Amino acid sequence: MTPDEFREAGHRLIDWIADLRSRTDSLPVLAQVEPGEIRARFEPEPPPGGASISELIDRLDSDIVPGVTQVQHPMHFGWFPSNASLASVLGDMASSGIGSLGISWESSPALTEVEEVVCDWMRQLVGLSDVWRGTIQDTASTASLVALLVARERASNLSQNRGGMQSVERPLVVYTSPHAHSSVGKAALLAGYGWDNIHTVDCDDRTLAIRPEALEAAIARDLEDGKTPAVVVATVGTTGATAIDPVADIVDVARIHDVFVHVDAALAGSAMLLPEMRDLWDGIEGADSISWNPHKWMGTILDTSLFYMRDIALLTSVMSTNPTYLQSAVDGAVTQYRDWGIAMGRRFRALKLLFHLEIDGIEAIRDRLREDLADARWLAAQVEAADEWELVAPVTLQTVCVRHRPAGMTDDGLDAHNRTWAAAINRSGQAYLTSSKLEDGWMVRVSIGVESTERSHVERLWKLMNEAASSTLRA
Amino acid sequence: MTPDEFREAGHRLIDWIADLRSRTDSLPVLAQVEPGEIRARFEPEPPPGGASISELIDRLDSDIVPGVTQVQHPMHFGWFPSNASLASVLGDMASSGIGSLGISWESSPALTEVEEVVCDWMRQLVGLSDVWRGTIQDTASTASLVALLVARERASNLSQNRGGMQSVERPLVVYTSPHAHSSVGKAALLAGYGWDNIHTVDCDDRTLAIRPEALEAAIARDLEDGKTPAVVVATVGTTGATAIDPVADIVDVARIHDVFVHVDAALAGSAMLLPEMRDLWDGIEGADSISWNPHKWMGTILDTSLFYMRDIALLTSVMSTNPTYLQSAVDGAVTQYRDWGIAMGRRFRALKLLFHLEIDGIEAIRDRLREDLADARWLAAQVEAADEWELVAPVTLQTVCVRHRPAGMTDDGLDAHNRTWAAAINRSGQAYLTSSKLEDGWMVRVSIGVESTERSHVERLWKLMNEAASSTLRA
Repeated sequence: MTPDEFREAGHRLIDWIADLRSRTDSLPVLAQVEPGEIRARFEPEPPPGGASISELIDRLDSDIVPGVTQVQHPMHFGWFPSNASLASVLGDMASSGIGSLGISWESSPALTEVEEVVCDWMRQLVGLSDVWRGTIQDTASTASLVALLVARERASNLSQNRGGMQSVERPLVVYTSPHAHSSVGKAALLAGYGWDNIHTVDCDDRTLAIRPEALEAAIARDLEDGKTPAVVVATVGTTGATAIDPVADIVDVARIHDVFVHVDAALAGSAMLLPEMRDLWDGIEGADSISWNPHKWMGTILDTSLFYMRDIALLTSVMSTNPTYLQSAVDGAVTQYRDWGIAMGRRFRALKLLFHLEIDGIEAIRDRLREDLADARWLAAQVEAADEWELVAPVTLQTVCVRHRPAGMTDDGLDAHNRTWAAAINRSGQAYLTSSKLEDGWMVRVSIGVESTERSHVERLWKLMNEAASSTLRA
Repeated sequence: MTPDEFREAGHRLIDWIADLRSRTDSLPVLAQVEPGEIRARFEPEPPPGGASISELIDRLDSDIVPGVTQVQHPMHFGWFPSNASLASVLGDMASSGIGSLGISWESSPALTEVEEVVCDWMRQLVGLSDVWRGTIQDTASTASLVALLVARERASNLSQNRGGMQSVERPLVVYTSPHAHSSVGKAALLAGYGWDNIHTVDCDDRTLAIRPEALEAAIARDLEDGKTPAVVVATVGTTGATAIDPVADIVDVARIHDVFVHVDAALAGSAMLLPEMRDLWDGIEGADSISWNPHKWMGTILDTSLFYMRDIALLTSVMSTNPTYLQSAVDGAVTQYRDWGIAMGRRFRALKLLFHLEIDGIEAIRDRLREDLADARWLAAQVEAADEWELVAPVTLQTVCVRHRPAGMTDDGLDAHNRTWAAAINRSGQAYLTSSKLEDGWMVRVSIGVESTERSHVERLWKLMNEAASSTLRA
């Protein structure tokens, strides 16, 4: 495809994207397709080529969009906000168009240095001190793995340079909340700690946050057992109920025992853009690493996951490779981001953040986040005021965890009932909510924060919830 | 930013991208900037927002493009071809515009099922049998890590479900070539095997490929030492000299000892699109996993790294998590790609491959690859015919490894001389080449395969090489 052919096709595609984003609220939220239905619309053999942009756009309309759950829809309240702001889409387009390769500073100095710049901007915007240096990973799953690998090597005095995890004599232990994201446990398994060495720490019944005394006790027990406490993962904003582990207290306990602290603020990091919310991660300066995802609530399109560390020399001592074909005269004077994570080849992700901040501006983003918080408080107030509804967890951020509890229904019945009315709303395509299990049973999460969601949408959702719960009871 | 504002800005950006790609050959190949120079062009504090697309486009021209090494330039012969075909850029744009979220089948059925479709198309196009199932990873570094994690768990009977790598009694060993990509060793370290358990296998002096007898001997030695041979990584097309490890022989040895075989064909996978080249990975059907990167020579924009396995149940048993908030009624009937790799959140990468194949078509891509192979043979013939030049490795693919050897120069002098003339070409911005170390000293790699490179560019390069080598001698 020549640049001129691209120009013509690109204009067509821009119009298509703008039109799609204009009509998102007319589409069903949940994709209304059965397993295998989209796959069956494609030929099993590869195409011959020569398709025009018109044909491909028709294809997007007929065979792709119907299979996409519209997480940009204002009635999407599922999982977490996964905003793809159009300003950041432009930055992503610029990145693709430039077609740069990030394998070393030399292969694209701008890719490296603009990433340094925007990571530092983002550091300032969430109020972190300048001891922190950041990089952009694809997701918080990867960031958690990087943190657990670094913690492993720190606690084992760089065992990877000898016999690896296979030579560790006093098993290294990971501490985390039972409410931590599934990717934390996965990262611990992949890093080789083993299931037996992942210790979930007791949480407060009401706040669902790690109890520092329980962490202290778990560490003491493991030391007695001849194990090595290596790392605590604290979550600021758990996936289920946005519980907030007490970072300051955790850091205090960890410091006594020389344990690494990683803070997973994948969701709540966006809230830290608001100075009035920063009490939630009080003590953060004592942590060793932090990850948070602008690609969630803040809205810089996926994949934009920030990872900050204080001790970059430790990070690079674990991640560094220096093959001769990438060596250059400037090696000592520049950042080589390939040594800050797992993948060597990197896209120019910083442009998404640059465009998002330059176009939308941080104050507009902050205003939107504050409206979402107010919407969540509004919904929580409705739930609390309603007879047969209950909040099942404190509303710390933009997520409201609810249960419909009709008079006289048993606990067993409650689980099925709540999953049923939520599923009915989801199937209808009118809104999307996520059912999730807390310790004492299933609940429904209302995760507010899609860019286009306004109070009226939350009001409509509350009406839908009441109707769906009633219909389910009558059925 | 509203859809209509996006529309207007998007059209401007499309024109800018088309213009950039039209004038790529007028830009210096190597970015002509000093360390810190790009960073200094940005304010240290975050911007207030409100920038117009005109301002941002000016910014791209003044502060970004000068800092980008132009890997799309026809005179780029460095590292490896990192093509970002404009057809695939359109697919990437569509993906960004749709703003889909891949965390489960339900979150975007099309993202999952189109990935299944295109991975199967790509399987057919490189002649693999239908026992293989594929997924798209970001890079081959990540794919190597996934393979080594799976091999670790296979050889340790899923030790991650018990005490992890920390509980392994007979240390697991990784075998690979000293010429394997640096990310293979890095993956082995990250997977916890440890430096002492990475055994590099002797290679043939001429072909630089693993000697199967040496592999057999290394395995026998480790078994005697009470170790567990776990995995061999065979490289089809090493980074340095595109050496081809003998897959069939390696598979034969591995099978006797129940050792997992991962084939890293990051670069050479593109060549497997050509039926006449498939002898190079003869025996591939006996391997356990394969990775290759359409984002290199084939030209589907980064990040598009294919990873194929035969035993998907093994892969998911290592990678699977199933948090309640992602459970759905269709779980058994669909592919959950989060369980095929490390990151949970995924972009809609399949659209890049879909657009590339649908627009450019496989036969046009194949024709281009064949021209690159012919250009490499042409250059090799010039080198062989020239008095003071030598080929330092067989030309197996599109990479020509050369050394200028003026009469009477010592081996010590040769290293400095060859690095100097290559650096002079790179600094000039007229072309870019990579110096790299082979066992017996430094050489210069000419990696042919940029989409816009034609014979005339290779001819010009050969002229530049001769001039630069002569000037260096005279200096």
